[in-house]
Amino acid sequence: MTPIEAGAFLTIDLKAIADNWRSLQSRLEPTECSAVLKADAYGLGADKIAPVLHEAGCRTFFVAYAFEGAALRPYVDDSKIYLLHGAWEGTEQICADNALIPVLGTLRQFEAWEAYAEKTGKPQTVGLHIDTGMTRFGLTRKNVADFCAKPPKNLKIDLIVSHLACADDPENPKSAEQLALFEKESSAVEKALGYSVRKSLSATDGCRLNDPAFRFDVARPGIALYDNAVRLDARILQKADAEAGQTVGYGATFAVDKPMRFATLGIGYADGFARAQFNRGHVFICGEKRPVVGKVSMDLTVADVTGIPYEALRDAETAEIFGDHISLKEYAAAAGTIDYEALTSLGRRFHRVYKQ
Amino acid sequence: MTPIEAGAFLTIDLKAIADNWRSLQSRLEPTECSAVLKADAYGLGADKIAPVLHEAGCRTFFVAYAFEGAALRPYVDDSKIYLLHGAWEGTEQICADNALIPVLGTLRQFEAWEAYAEKTGKPQTVGLHIDTGMTRFGLTRKNVADFCAKPPKNLKIDLIVSHLACADDPENPKSAEQLALFEKESSAVEKALGYSVRKSLSATDGCRLNDPAFRFDVARPGIALYDNAVRLDARILQKADAEAGQTVGYGATFAVDKPMRFATLGIGYADGFARAQFNRGHVFICGEKRPVVGKVSMDLTVADVTGIPYEALRDAETAEIFGDHISLKEYAAAAGTIDYEALTSLGRRFHRVYKQ
Repeated sequence: MTPIEAGAFLTIDLKAIADNWRSLQSRLEPTECSAVLKADAYGLGADKIAPVLHEAGCRTFFVAYAFEGAALRPYVDDSKIYLLHGAWEGTEQICADNALIPVLGTLRQFEAWEAYAEKTGKPQTVGLHIDTGMTRFGLTRKNVADFCAKPPKNLKIDLIVSHLACADDPENPKSAEQLALFEKESSAVEKALGYSVRKSLSATDGCRLNDPAFRFDVARPGIALYDNAVRLDARILQKADAEAGQTVGYGATFAVDKPMRFATLGIGYADGFARAQFNRGHVFICGEKRPVVGKVSMDLTVADVTGIPYEALRDAETAEIFGDHISLKEYAAAAGTIDYEALTSLGRRFHRVYKQ
Repeated sequence: MTPIEAGAFLTIDLKAIADNWRSLQSRLEPTECSAVLKADAYGLGADKIAPVLHEAGCRTFFVAYAFEGAALRPYVDDSKIYLLHGAWEGTEQICADNALIPVLGTLRQFEAWEAYAEKTGKPQTVGLHIDTGMTRFGLTRKNVADFCAKPPKNLKIDLIVSHLACADDPENPKSAEQLALFEKESSAVEKALGYSVRKSLSATDGCRLNDPAFRFDVARPGIALYDNAVRLDARILQKADAEAGQTVGYGATFAVDKPMRFATLGIGYADGFARAQFNRGHVFICGEKRPVVGKVSMDLTVADVTGIPYEALRDAETAEIFGDHISLKEYAAAAGTIDYEALTSLGRRFHRVYKQ
């Protein structure tokens, strides 16, 4: 898609992303800073982001699925790629072909991988996910006891992983509980295995906790890589005056009660500009933050630009959706969500610009 | 992506979509039934859906952008493709190369297209969008008066389009007001042009209005094409028991107060399973509708499967997200939105199955 054809423009600053990673790595020393690039690097393009992180020095990557790891492999040929969903029966070959390390999280996954190791006659390298409080994925306390009673043969455990539930709240005692459990369970595992294993507990919010005890060997930032690195602008398709008595959008929810002026933008909920922005969201246009009016349509959004001179509007080609004047967090909050979901919801119809 | 690698499975029943279109066409006779395939056919794959609709007899398609029309063209070579966003300066060539008909909606777009017709020395075929009450896109009443005072030279108007704001509410008087205005403005345009023009007012909800006066020459169903044609299932990654005192997910929002059993699904908000499903959504698993517990993660969702025997769970490979037992509308409502947004939000990590 050429820029002239597009309704909206997503700008991803690769240099800022590399700088964010370098700054994280320097702050986390001696912990190794990895990068979490699952969900196509939160929708921003793992194929573009992986190479610049690799050039910056990143050598450990996390994704969720084997197919994500396989897609990443060509860009980071000397690096470790871990699969946070582990790997189940039937995915052994794609892991082997792409040197992916599944972080196994259930005894059933361990059984499948032991069987695979036995079949190939080669010891297999895997990670181990211990659940310390998400109750979502990873060996439960009972599973860990079973694991330790009979450690898997022919599997080399390369990394022990867990995940914090409340690291965004530094006062929450749950993080300390999870830390204590992680240390206890990891020790039991290492004792049963007879060797020490590298460990990883903190994702973005965990990295931000002041206590270095949370950092262990590998930190796993995701969203922290994208601070001030992403912006979204939309084309202004129409500027029009309206009179009292008109209504805007589906359901006629916005009633025009005086002469007003509207700008219609080439972005809608099919592009990730959520319907929930209705009556809450803003866009930045001609130097002003202006409210979204009426319900967001699938492909179009209307902003109130009353009072902005027509001459200024005529020259304005685009409006900022988020970036310099509206932060990603503010944009996400107006959609009733968080920056993570705002990014992963972004659509596929944008003209994408990757700034080097 | 092979099925074994996937975390979730999107099944799109092309035969049901073709049947839906045929049934609409038969009900709308003598109005021509078109198909709205913008936003990649609401995220379902325009390249797969266009050929089956074409085979069913559909010969008129609507998309929003020229790049969408260009992508559609190879599948419907003898059909009309209209662009609902019109077309702006700089997009003339892609329209010409793909025989796309922009439905122009601003005087500025008309100026650009007149200039293009003059430059090429060839009359250009375009549509005309009249705003009758969305206050979103299309010529305003004042614009129509200006248009009629000096109808564009070298442009052949092929279709007059408008869009209903409240057609989902059959009692709403706004639809009748829009209808009256559409007839009045269209007549003025035809009189100024000196020839009659085909007209299109109703999208899916308009087609459902009992009064055939809303139908005109071309109806534009979108979501109506997909009734009972789409289902989504997610892989069960883990089944695990939990004890009182544990919590589920980010923020520890779900407290386990008795022995419980959970299933963790390979779907999260990066896949379009909205965070807003938290404490509201359900999935269908082992013959039962079970609630989502805890916050939805980017790649994982946890369901309460307490009381389902472990043997049944062990054999269960997937859970239904929507389809046979949870309707798309119910799924969308649990996310606080409508079926349109639920579809266009679906992610790209699914294994897609197109049933013929």
